[in-house]
Amino acid sequence: MKISVVRDILEANERIARQNRDLFTKNGLLVINLMSSPGAGKTSLLEKTIDNLKDNINIGVIEGDIQSTHDAERIASKGIPAVQINTGGACHLDGNMIRDTFKEFDFKLMDLLVVENVGNLVCPAEFKLGEDYKIMILSVTEGDDKPSKYPLMFHESSVLLINKIDLLPYVDCSLEKIKADSLKINPDMTIFQISCKTGEGLEGWYNWLRERVKISQ
Amino acid sequence: MKISVVRDILEANERIARQNRDLFTKNGLLVINLMSSPGAGKTSLLEKTIDNLKDNINIGVIEGDIQSTHDAERIASKGIPAVQINTGGACHLDGNMIRDTFKEFDFKLMDLLVVENVGNLVCPAEFKLGEDYKIMILSVTEGDDKPSKYPLMFHESSVLLINKIDLLPYVDCSLEKIKADSLKINPDMTIFQISCKTGEGLEGWYNWLRERVKISQ
Repeated sequence: MKISVVRDILEANERIARQNRDLFTKNGLLVINLMSSPGAGKTSLLEKTIDNLKDNINIGVIEGDIQSTHDAERIASKGIPAVQINTGGACHLDGNMIRDTFKEFDFKLMDLLVVENVGNLVCPAEFKLGEDYKIMILSVTEGDDKPSKYPLMFHESSVLLINKIDLLPYVDCSLEKIKADSLKINPDMTIFQISCKTGEGLEGWYNWLRERVKISQ
Repeated sequence: MKISVVRDILEANERIARQNRDLFTKNGLLVINLMSSPGAGKTSLLEKTIDNLKDNINIGVIEGDIQSTHDAERIASKGIPAVQINTGGACHLDGNMIRDTFKEFDFKLMDLLVVENVGNLVCPAEFKLGEDYKIMILSVTEGDDKPSKYPLMFHESSVLLINKIDLLPYVDCSLEKIKADSLKINPDMTIFQISCKTGEGLEGWYNWLRERVKISQ
């Protein structure tokens, strides 16, 4: 009984996600869904990415949080259209919440929509939003056992950004193990090693995004 | 409609949690429910705590993970009875999963049962297991904005352990802000600043546990 309820919710969500996706495609909009544990660096990555790309690419942002408007304020301060979704307790965004924000954006003026999901390495992986790509961040401070413990997120994500590599000298974490275990779960995954603090490794990520924004137009 | 389904699930869970709690009380067992984001240090804290207390206190452990038996193996290697629950996708433990492990333990021989929940700063806070105390860990690498973004977990937890303080020189994180914002949400919260790596600050936590094990017997 419980399983059928969950399946109904997921199926209803996929219908809405498909409708969102159709609208994004019609507008030549690239949409990415950014996911991670709390504090892995989603908003910091977004700030760096906006600073680097905003002169050539028109970006919009949807910020997902249970409560607070802290992240949307950080993004809006860069002159980027940003809409905050407060889930009021729910642990992930869904297609319907995304659809509710559409009236706040003019998609014709945008090239890239970034959705920052609620900080959670589990539930967001199950809910499609209509995005082109799921992108995940893992901080080296979380340890190198995360692919085997949270496999769905690694399975669903097209890109893994391993963040905070500036802290590698101070933590027990093997980059090689993270990469090997991630690719075992998802052999097509693209992996970047980055530090949002020092900027190291971010050029590859920017290029990955630039190429795909061009294709979607 | 969706809301009533969720409420039914939570109410059914609370009934089972109360039954678990009655059984724990009957056996003079102190039960704590350990929660945090992925990689904040739950298993490391547990290893340190076992090493320090196991000569005087009989401990049992329930390890909750979506997949893998990695953490239960780490604990069992210390000669402690440890049962792994694999939720198979679910983002939190519930009362029923805890009850299913009872046949694996002899509560008469135990003083303290530690439940390590799935790594998730959201959903586990909603599901009672029958525990005496909810305990949460926050790593300083997650940043100081977490109380305002994940308030329920802070509201429900009796103790906050701020972990990885050895990394404070390398991250942008204010301990004072974490403590002030946590106490705003939950004025009765007991807060310890610790490093599971260096051992700093752990004595206060051990004493907190020792006192409560004595009372429950």
